[in-house]
Amino acid sequence: MEPHDLEAYLHEHIPISRHMGIAVVQADLARVTLRAPLEPNINHRSTVFAGSCASVAMLAAWSLVLLRVRDAGLDARIVIQHGAMDYLTPIDGAFSATCDSPDEAVWARFMRALERGRPVRVDLTAEVESEAGPVAKMTGSYAAIPPSKG
Amino acid sequence: MEPHDLEAYLHEHIPISRHMGIAVVQADLARVTLRAPLEPNINHRSTVFAGSCASVAMLAAWSLVLLRVRDAGLDARIVIQHGAMDYLTPIDGAFSATCDSPDEAVWARFMRALERGRPVRVDLTAEVESEAGPVAKMTGSYAAIPPSKG
Repeated sequence: MEPHDLEAYLHEHIPISRHMGIAVVQADLARVTLRAPLEPNINHRSTVFAGSCASVAMLAAWSLVLLRVRDAGLDARIVIQHGAMDYLTPIDGAFSATCDSPDEAVWARFMRALERGRPVRVDLTAEVESEAGPVAKMTGSYAAIPPSKG
Repeated sequence: MEPHDLEAYLHEHIPISRHMGIAVVQADLARVTLRAPLEPNINHRSTVFAGSCASVAMLAAWSLVLLRVRDAGLDARIVIQHGAMDYLTPIDGAFSATCDSPDEAVWARFMRALERGRPVRVDLTAEVESEAGPVAKMTGSYAAIPPSKG
């Protein structure tokens, strides 16, 4: 799945991501970076609405799980179970959220569970940045549920 | 500020809230309830996108702070500093987020700080429900910053 495929997938299946202007900057097994402009996500203070910031961060991490599961030739329903955002400073322009992959050992354990038809969870972080530097941070727990358990 | 005034305010100043179809069901000093339909917030599984769920919950709690600050005749920049979501179950239809006011003593302390020109924080929760019952829960820390500190 190339970056433009992921972008098309998000825009088609999660239409609010299109309204948010989310673009895929990088999408591979090591990292997913999503970007969004200020304008469609603006709030009453002309900075980024916290819900848009959370949405972009959550989708970056969710997309990394999707890419990993597909790369392993598996299928699973991927859902966020818990997500926490720390907002460091108002965001007054375009912003991006980057989810870096955890160690391969995490994924090895993860895929073994899925292959055995067992639900499994992974904890991920996403860093949100603007031109000014870091602006927010997300930590999220994502569950992957095999089709038979769906 | 009546419910329809709050709705107009949100739609005008936070335009993504209009795309999400957010409606104000109740908005007073005791409680804010916001509601949103499934369709504009749908995801690849035909359930509600977690980012939309978080957005509605965050706006419910933010709106309660706004109403409280305005009712006290004060002005402040109200920003979320930390927000955490627990997602209990997929949401397969319209949903609402309700933020109930904490005790009056919390607001008394809060307004005293603002009146003295000091930034102050309040912790709030918002319960998200669908027809099926509770579906998610948010806890958020909101800061109010007086204009002179803005």
